[in-house]
Amino acid sequence: MRISELSRRSGVSNATIKYYLREGLLPPGRATAATQAEYDETHLRRLRLIRALTGVRGLSVAAAKHVLDAIAECQTDTHRLLGIVFGIWPSDAGKPETNGDGPPQESPEADALIDAMGWSVSEYNPARQVIDQTLRTLRSLGIEYDWQALLPYADLAARTARHDLDRLQTVTDPLEKAERAVLLTFLLEPALMALRRLAQEDESIVRYGEGPDAPQPDGPCPPGHE
Amino acid sequence: MRISELSRRSGVSNATIKYYLREGLLPPGRATAATQAEYDETHLRRLRLIRALTGVRGLSVAAAKHVLDAIAECQTDTHRLLGIVFGIWPSDAGKPETNGDGPPQESPEADALIDAMGWSVSEYNPARQVIDQTLRTLRSLGIEYDWQALLPYADLAARTARHDLDRLQTVTDPLEKAERAVLLTFLLEPALMALRRLAQEDESIVRYGEGPDAPQPDGPCPPGHE
Repeated sequence: MRISELSRRSGVSNATIKYYLREGLLPPGRATAATQAEYDETHLRRLRLIRALTGVRGLSVAAAKHVLDAIAECQTDTHRLLGIVFGIWPSDAGKPETNGDGPPQESPEADALIDAMGWSVSEYNPARQVIDQTLRTLRSLGIEYDWQALLPYADLAARTARHDLDRLQTVTDPLEKAERAVLLTFLLEPALMALRRLAQEDESIVRYGEGPDAPQPDGPCPPGHE
Repeated sequence: MRISELSRRSGVSNATIKYYLREGLLPPGRATAATQAEYDETHLRRLRLIRALTGVRGLSVAAAKHVLDAIAECQTDTHRLLGIVFGIWPSDAGKPETNGDGPPQESPEADALIDAMGWSVSEYNPARQVIDQTLRTLRSLGIEYDWQALLPYADLAARTARHDLDRLQTVTDPLEKAERAVLLTFLLEPALMALRRLAQEDESIVRYGEGPDAPQPDGPCPPGHE
């Protein structure tokens, strides 16, 4: 397909496509004339991936390139591929500070939890530091949690992960699998948090409410949220 | 306690405390002289809440004030209190666009899912739109998901919510309960996402890897993440 069709089907403007080509995020198309090129489905899939990575939950273009290069290098090694994907932290989600190329920061509480769960996890996974930071923050705000407090949630995370990995089984090509993993892991996170909020509201009615049709009390307590 | 002790114990600077006082986020202390006031544990707890709300996962000061005012108005109504808390959307988590005070935007897919789960949820809960937006985004990127695809995750969210609400049972005062709910709901989210990532990595080894001690292959595939 020509660049205009690629633009239309991917939802990415011509100008942005050309920028990605210059930056090496998108491989060149097949040159058919001095100023024309043909693109195919792999370009389309790649653009969708870039959109997912740099869009709403925003990796920088450089970070997205890093991820895509790593995926390209590991393309026959499904576990490593997925490891790269699962280690991507959205820039809006309080990514822990890193030491650049230095050794990973200590995360004793995450280490203990991972051990208790019997999990095998790379020492480089940024999720470790997120857990330790969260626990420190909670304690600084008066909630005396340690890693054991997270164990029931870890069990539920394990079940979630099994569903996540089940969804990848339908795709056999390791590169496509990694791409699907990017979309499902990354983009599903807000929905998972939204589901928790909905379930919390429902559970709150079960425990504290008077049912969905209880009459509104008079008074300033706002009936709706926000 | 005097303002300096309040500052030390809360981790909030004197200047910021005075700013919160001027903005009405923090109630005044008890005046003991022309330029002195005494503060107590409720001020400390309030500051911790404000830090949690405006900190890493950043509500604006105005949004935080809105939440705290609503909590103060509903303080005898635990369900409404929690409803306010569970409806708070962190500003970094892709909060759906709202119509201001207009009717909530349509969310047919979330509606169907909520119905299937037998949940009672306010039409104002922003989580509804997050779910519909997520599904639209996934489909625009080639993943043909509808709301039914989220049902297994919704079941797990229900279990998560029961744990969340269990953690609130230890506190009986409705206001303290709401404050604890703010901290646990809001601040725990990154940790829950981190647990999912760790579990995904472990599950990926189970299905695709050769075990944690498999020798590193030669070649450019990067051994660590990031």
